[in-house]
Amino acid sequence: MFVSTGFSVASLFVVTVYIWLQMTKIFFHLTSPAKYSTAILLYLSRKYNTPDHWYPSDIQKRAQVDEYLSWHHANIRANAPKTMWIKVLIPLFTGQPLPSEKLQEVMDGLSTSLKQFEERFLQDKAFIIGSEISLADLVAIVELMQPVGVGCDIFEDRPRLMEWRRRVEDAVGKELFFQAHEMILSIKELSNIQIDPRLKEQLAPVLLKMLK
Amino acid sequence: MFVSTGFSVASLFVVTVYIWLQMTKIFFHLTSPAKYSTAILLYLSRKYNTPDHWYPSDIQKRAQVDEYLSWHHANIRANAPKTMWIKVLIPLFTGQPLPSEKLQEVMDGLSTSLKQFEERFLQDKAFIIGSEISLADLVAIVELMQPVGVGCDIFEDRPRLMEWRRRVEDAVGKELFFQAHEMILSIKELSNIQIDPRLKEQLAPVLLKMLK
Repeated sequence: MFVSTGFSVASLFVVTVYIWLQMTKIFFHLTSPAKYSTAILLYLSRKYNTPDHWYPSDIQKRAQVDEYLSWHHANIRANAPKTMWIKVLIPLFTGQPLPSEKLQEVMDGLSTSLKQFEERFLQDKAFIIGSEISLADLVAIVELMQPVGVGCDIFEDRPRLMEWRRRVEDAVGKELFFQAHEMILSIKELSNIQIDPRLKEQLAPVLLKMLK
Repeated sequence: MFVSTGFSVASLFVVTVYIWLQMTKIFFHLTSPAKYSTAILLYLSRKYNTPDHWYPSDIQKRAQVDEYLSWHHANIRANAPKTMWIKVLIPLFTGQPLPSEKLQEVMDGLSTSLKQFEERFLQDKAFIIGSEISLADLVAIVELMQPVGVGCDIFEDRPRLMEWRRRVEDAVGKELFFQAHEMILSIKELSNIQIDPRLKEQLAPVLLKMLK
């Protein structure tokens, strides 16, 4: 953790990347069918030799990070960002809100994933792999702040999840945490912007397909 | 590759794990909501210090493996095994075949994933990360042999994919390759076995939910 191990250039780099990933997340969603971000974070942790806790050299702990990253894509990653598409991005590009059943379906899927996240990964630990924050926590929180940004606060009524979020905020630093999530937490403002009709025409079917 | 780097105990170990993962795949599908196998392979490659090509120490190549593994879950992994559930496992536990549209829907999704696999990951290379086989190829082939086992030969009419499969077979060793896939390639025989009605009752809704 930054608090316990002190500040370093490498830590700054990982957090800068974290902010950058946040800022480019919408771009990724709109233009790429792939999930690059975990591979980018692993690459940067190696290239810049970041503090050990991000991706521990201990192979048992490293396996725990890998296990979370494997599970993440078809669970948290498959559900959480859809709330943003349903509530903001798809209506923005199609001009039509989606039926409320669609959001309910996604929230039900997310709820199942969050139950597994708490019971199987978080358990009674401070972070996913134990007492220190790792890339697994960063990858998870980035997705879980997206429902919050569109008014679906998945931390309400989930005290264990909320306590974990607070620890992640403290480990990253609250100011930096909210700076990194600034765009996501004000994503609803996008509803007021005007989109070029040709861009709407191109992107609407892509977004609807992603949600399918 | 085994052919070019020679046989070693570590290579044997990775391949044994590969066979084991194949044999336990059905068990995983039925009992676990998670995708453990990539994390297990990464762990074993570290613990038994397997030959470098499986998970290269070169950080550019390693990032290519990670990139494939990130993409894999929501694409190849999300579609290929469903062919087996639709054609064999679900009818076995529910006693009813699924409508043919369901298989067509999965095959369409798989077709899109395979196009991306060829164009974005395989390109004109021998293997996913270049001239040598890596864990990314193993993780991919394990899923892609499942449609083959239920009569949906996705290698037909895809010469580039077929050539890649032949190279994977050669790198692993043909005998070992078919030994590892023996159960998957004869999965249709399961259609003739009798299942305990109580087990049917328990597993049918779980399988149907997985397919949703």
